[in-house]
Amino acid sequence: MSEARIIDGKAFAADLRGKIAEGVADVRARHALVPGLAVVLVGEDPASQVYVRNKGEQTREAGMHSVTHRLPADTTQDALLRLVDQLNHDPSIHGILVQLPLPAHIDSAAVLAAIDPAKDVDGFHVVNAGRLAVGLPALVPCTPLGCLMLLKDTVGSLRGLHAVVVGRSNIVGKPMAQLLLQADCTVTVAHSRTVDLAETCRRADILVAAVGRPEMVRGDWIKEGAVVIDVGINRVPARDPAAAAAGKTRLVGDVAFEEAKAFAGAITPVPGGVGPMTIACLLLNTLTAACRSRGLELPPMVTTARGTPV
Amino acid sequence: MSEARIIDGKAFAADLRGKIAEGVADVRARHALVPGLAVVLVGEDPASQVYVRNKGEQTREAGMHSVTHRLPADTTQDALLRLVDQLNHDPSIHGILVQLPLPAHIDSAAVLAAIDPAKDVDGFHVVNAGRLAVGLPALVPCTPLGCLMLLKDTVGSLRGLHAVVVGRSNIVGKPMAQLLLQADCTVTVAHSRTVDLAETCRRADILVAAVGRPEMVRGDWIKEGAVVIDVGINRVPARDPAAAAAGKTRLVGDVAFEEAKAFAGAITPVPGGVGPMTIACLLLNTLTAACRSRGLELPPMVTTARGTPV
Repeated sequence: MSEARIIDGKAFAADLRGKIAEGVADVRARHALVPGLAVVLVGEDPASQVYVRNKGEQTREAGMHSVTHRLPADTTQDALLRLVDQLNHDPSIHGILVQLPLPAHIDSAAVLAAIDPAKDVDGFHVVNAGRLAVGLPALVPCTPLGCLMLLKDTVGSLRGLHAVVVGRSNIVGKPMAQLLLQADCTVTVAHSRTVDLAETCRRADILVAAVGRPEMVRGDWIKEGAVVIDVGINRVPARDPAAAAAGKTRLVGDVAFEEAKAFAGAITPVPGGVGPMTIACLLLNTLTAACRSRGLELPPMVTTARGTPV
Repeated sequence: MSEARIIDGKAFAADLRGKIAEGVADVRARHALVPGLAVVLVGEDPASQVYVRNKGEQTREAGMHSVTHRLPADTTQDALLRLVDQLNHDPSIHGILVQLPLPAHIDSAAVLAAIDPAKDVDGFHVVNAGRLAVGLPALVPCTPLGCLMLLKDTVGSLRGLHAVVVGRSNIVGKPMAQLLLQADCTVTVAHSRTVDLAETCRRADILVAAVGRPEMVRGDWIKEGAVVIDVGINRVPARDPAAAAAGKTRLVGDVAFEEAKAFAGAITPVPGGVGPMTIACLLLNTLTAACRSRGLELPPMVTTARGTPV
């Protein structure tokens, strides 16, 4: 039994962002097209502030046009819908991301439904979910898209492999299953109602854990040599009891990493695995949306990047 | 080993049509709402002629308003799109079905995309595929909806059962998987690229075969006691060699029925299993669309019918 290869999502994402930056330079030069991403943040949620700042920085680093709209927490739904409508009609904006969660007085579903599906770079609109489901070109949710790229880079062709996705959220589990099915995997979706989850996981050549429960997937749930993609990011008390008592925390995934390493052929760590891929795929979706708005193909340096599923 | 219970889809569909007729009478009486279905047939395909006639007859028998538009084979795409647009805006029509296949000079995808999703009683529009995928109320393709009703009637709660769907078409396999996932099954989608299909099928508590290959699923692929739903309808030569030589045929499913009966706990026959459910579910979708157009719930005699998933 040899130890798993650690899939370096941080390096992969950095490489992908570099290719996207080259692609942006290419469409700027050849087509005078400047991909633009608008991020909308309502309220003062500290985690959201960090995400939004990172998204803005990485968008600019990729050479894209970046706009951030920071609205007060008491913004009305009507005002937010007016902003979305304005962005839908703004020709300099190709991607619109409304940062979740929204304040409780706003109907998130109504706001997400108001985004032009062609600019829905989060891939949460029902039209994009439907296009993905029936196999039409879609904007695909960033996290599962990033997982697929890591998998293709690690495994090569996924054809005929048995993929088990644990979790059935609209944001990760369900679109992940669709992508794996398109890649010709036999796909099993397991979840909290699955009767023998350990045994189901043991049948996986590819195991994607997206349940949000710290270290739920144990080492002996993993088939020898399987590729494990850990989507979970859970904050738990620090290992050292004194530090934990002082309120120190650490991040763990949905997979018990140290145990799993002994069984898996390859595995993503937390942090530094799937996490960095999400914003990189947001940039990829923005470039895709910009190119499609002009009827252009993605530039070749992007379509030939490692693991690119397009 | 006891022999499987035969699931009588013909009787079930007749019962469902009766409940729907009661439901139609109810909304007519209480809300002056007459559900209306428009079926559009382009060209002279003999099988399509039969389907369309059956749909019209069963629609009228259920007390609904029924309109059939028969257009010549050389109808232009523009003319067909104009008709769809007219039906989209016709308040007496709640369901629109464009019979497939369309003549080769017409882009079927463009025509299906033009149907108002609220009237898309076939459930093929990307908006309905997306709504089903994310768990919003949708119009669901008729055949998988019928399969789900037969399953619920046969098994009761599906929670925690392992369902294996063989086939990944947009019309049956993929929406079937979504419905089974919503019903809390652990769901595996297998297909032509699946490496060990027999072994995958043997793990199924519920096996749905929708591949269009005569008798591909053998008896020993079926777990003792599993419930088998056979969606295939394949025409093969008659058993008697003389009759076969004379061009006589018979219908078989995707499952080797005689073999499978010895293993399954329950199984649908072909014909007389899933087939009759499809038009019954078309009527159900039309009633659903009509009720939703007025913001009404489905009448209670329908929501309490056997196997009703609503």
